[in-house]
Amino acid sequence: MRPVTESGLLRENERLDDLQNGYYVIQDPDKFCFGMDAVLLSDFAAVKKGERVLDMCTGTGVIPILLAAKTEGMSFTGLEIMEDCAEMASRSVKLNGLMDRVSVRCGDVREASALFGQKSFHVVTCNPPYMAKGEGLQNPGDALCIARHEILCSLEDVLREAGRVLVDGGRFYMVHRPRRLAEVMDAMRAFHLEPKSLRMVYPFADREANLFLIEGRKGGKPFMAVKPPLIVYEKPGKYTGEIFRIYGMPDAN
Amino acid sequence: MRPVTESGLLRENERLDDLQNGYYVIQDPDKFCFGMDAVLLSDFAAVKKGERVLDMCTGTGVIPILLAAKTEGMSFTGLEIMEDCAEMASRSVKLNGLMDRVSVRCGDVREASALFGQKSFHVVTCNPPYMAKGEGLQNPGDALCIARHEILCSLEDVLREAGRVLVDGGRFYMVHRPRRLAEVMDAMRAFHLEPKSLRMVYPFADREANLFLIEGRKGGKPFMAVKPPLIVYEKPGKYTGEIFRIYGMPDAN
Repeated sequence: MRPVTESGLLRENERLDDLQNGYYVIQDPDKFCFGMDAVLLSDFAAVKKGERVLDMCTGTGVIPILLAAKTEGMSFTGLEIMEDCAEMASRSVKLNGLMDRVSVRCGDVREASALFGQKSFHVVTCNPPYMAKGEGLQNPGDALCIARHEILCSLEDVLREAGRVLVDGGRFYMVHRPRRLAEVMDAMRAFHLEPKSLRMVYPFADREANLFLIEGRKGGKPFMAVKPPLIVYEKPGKYTGEIFRIYGMPDAN
Repeated sequence: MRPVTESGLLRENERLDDLQNGYYVIQDPDKFCFGMDAVLLSDFAAVKKGERVLDMCTGTGVIPILLAAKTEGMSFTGLEIMEDCAEMASRSVKLNGLMDRVSVRCGDVREASALFGQKSFHVVTCNPPYMAKGEGLQNPGDALCIARHEILCSLEDVLREAGRVLVDGGRFYMVHRPRRLAEVMDAMRAFHLEPKSLRMVYPFADREANLFLIEGRKGGKPFMAVKPPLIVYEKPGKYTGEIFRIYGMPDAN
């Protein structure tokens, strides 16, 4: 990747992470770096040919970049409130030569429908801050903290705006923590995003889930499916075959 | 079991099912027979020493009988609307010699709080009809149909009355179909039964869930756990070790 670092797109203290599919994401190790949750969400989200996609709380822009790589969606917009973060994500888009399909907008999720207009996307994705306001220690000015805690946007803000910017029948995809599952489902229904599909992510086959993936449909009718369990590790240090597949890595089995 | 059949407790056309723990349940093969869901719910439900337990929609009475067998709860009441079913369940209680701890009451779930009084139980369990009103074919006079469809009581009836008869902090345990998970969680919260623990039941490790077990706490605060996946079959025809444990059968492994 020497040519890239020499292109001026990569700044000091930043690193380049290989998405294993020919694409790369710039990250600043001092700020929030994307994790497995973003990769799992990108695998779970279905985007059809020609669809317009909004990724709320896009951070590094990893989700729109992965979705652009794996789907035939028409456009992918990442919305990010932190200016330096949005600027870094824009450089990742340039670095991958995805400027015709992916764009990053610096703005507030709470104003998404005002920024983009109502019913302007077929799909909304979001890997939001997991911690509710007041949960755990907070340092509200810190970028890491903003990425993890509901400081600049709440679950309700995300769902309300997703409900507004989606076309009727449009799909909403989110990853979140099981501890908040009841709240998430409840709030999704309140904003007319009917839960249609849920997938639990378990670190090991005999352990509690530590993430879930959920799909909602705007204006959808009740009745949903709970997809097969997604198990991350076969044993300590060894991913399952499905994780290898999702990461696009050759399975060591 | 010859002495039992000769005791007059077992009628013609009825059969005696062995619960594998020294207890038996009388069933009428022409009516609704309990399935794995009732056994899984009895395993999932936690009853502490001295607690009073109500089982709504008790049917054959299998849940109070299993709970009386495995816990130190003080009393177990099964509530059943169908008279002949309640009478048969009462005979199962006698047959097992559990009359001092288990009783069956013939009555309407929709009037549970009037029948038993508010805040009269520490634990409520329920294996309710899974099908919403209008779902699938119905023959409303049929006992099988009443057990499977929300004809004589709805999800809301069950949750409303559970919320009323439970003491503050009391626990509610239910088994239901994943397709109705969002509705169940939503309605539980509406009746102040905060979901605290959820366990998905998958027939095979690579298949969609076909049941879930849920625990709610009356007046509980948000935040819940999703327990390890419960997988039923290791391969077709072969239960997993956990199912062998729950059924109290020696694991063939």
